[in-house]
Amino acid sequence: MTIVVYDLAGRDDLRFSPNCWRTRLALAHKGLVADPVATRFTEIGEIRGSGQKTVPVIEDGANTVADSWEIANYLEDSYPDARTLFGGDAGREYARFVQAWVQTQIHPRLARLIIKDVHDILAPEDQAYFRESRERLFGRSLEDVQAGREARLEDLHNALAPVRLVVSQQPFLGGDQPLYPDYLVFSALQWGRTTSTLQLLPVDDPLNVWVESCLDLYDGLARSAPARTAA
Amino acid sequence: MTIVVYDLAGRDDLRFSPNCWRTRLALAHKGLVADPVATRFTEIGEIRGSGQKTVPVIEDGANTVADSWEIANYLEDSYPDARTLFGGDAGREYARFVQAWVQTQIHPRLARLIIKDVHDILAPEDQAYFRESRERLFGRSLEDVQAGREARLEDLHNALAPVRLVVSQQPFLGGDQPLYPDYLVFSALQWGRTTSTLQLLPVDDPLNVWVESCLDLYDGLARSAPARTAA
Repeated sequence: MTIVVYDLAGRDDLRFSPNCWRTRLALAHKGLVADPVATRFTEIGEIRGSGQKTVPVIEDGANTVADSWEIANYLEDSYPDARTLFGGDAGREYARFVQAWVQTQIHPRLARLIIKDVHDILAPEDQAYFRESRERLFGRSLEDVQAGREARLEDLHNALAPVRLVVSQQPFLGGDQPLYPDYLVFSALQWGRTTSTLQLLPVDDPLNVWVESCLDLYDGLARSAPARTAA
Repeated sequence: MTIVVYDLAGRDDLRFSPNCWRTRLALAHKGLVADPVATRFTEIGEIRGSGQKTVPVIEDGANTVADSWEIANYLEDSYPDARTLFGGDAGREYARFVQAWVQTQIHPRLARLIIKDVHDILAPEDQAYFRESRERLFGRSLEDVQAGREARLEDLHNALAPVRLVVSQQPFLGGDQPLYPDYLVFSALQWGRTTSTLQLLPVDDPLNVWVESCLDLYDGLARSAPARTAA
């Protein structure tokens, strides 16, 4: 049965949301058939009777599940015979830690590098909402948040050091094969790749090999979203 | 059979090394009997025929194993019937990631806060070696490295955010029970606790609850090393 995923979309049907990419890669990892439904920021409230404020939201038959972490756990527990997303209890804790690390160390640094670029790839009808809500959060204009970003690239590189160290020794954070922690970190970089013209990683960064491996997964699922840097 | 652990010691037999604490907690976790042998920096080269340059080193019968990561893997694989340290293959990847995170994000920040204090708790015969080797590494005096440290405490607090987030929701990074990732992070804080008068965490930091839980483990094994902050 197809699982519906309400998937954040910008203009030109661009799929850029890190939290939605986590879910789409998790579904593909488990071999489940997904129908990613383009959803604009200002359409989230209209998702069928859910009262949701964020995406991803999935509909699996009669079950509606919101929040990427809840969805990952739902998929792992509801489809125990499909390929494991966590690799057991300790692996679920691994995912929990990496999610906390991405949430507190990577997304905030990325946001300060690309937030105006994210605004610019939204559909016109979403831009006012996005600007108003994010400027309230940061306490200054999107332009001011993003200004001088080149000087902050090194800080992002340093923050990514643990991933670089691990994937310099083996193919994935999960070992020989990816696990959910790979999708958590990759989806953050996919956010940058799909929204911003800023080159986040130096071309000779060992992380790029792993990024390319993630882009190749599932017949190039994540590569189907065009890179803005390549434009 | 007792496993010998060459364990870094300062003056007054103080055990302060984060890498050695990882190993001692790992041995206790697996219920193995350990004999921690006090080893000064300038005695490491004398460890029985090993040519070692760092501790911990363990001797388990005829097997000598160096490096805390190699030791953790050796213990897990050689004693598969004892309580698991990793919790399976994905859990071993969890430990690998957290070790890379501690190595690149936590130890360097801690070193810049406490390196002169570490020098001061060493035996007099180790201090010259320590000062010379560490000043070469940092390119300046230990006093200069540590100067102005209060202003850098917030940076350490921010770097520890993922651990804070996880242990605010559950007892350990391993879940209801500790796994090796708990020992990796705790041992870093134990390094500060045993060497420095600097209060690393605010008294109301939720991390303290987890630190106290780690200190309580195995009949207060880690608490047996006195806190310098409490002096």
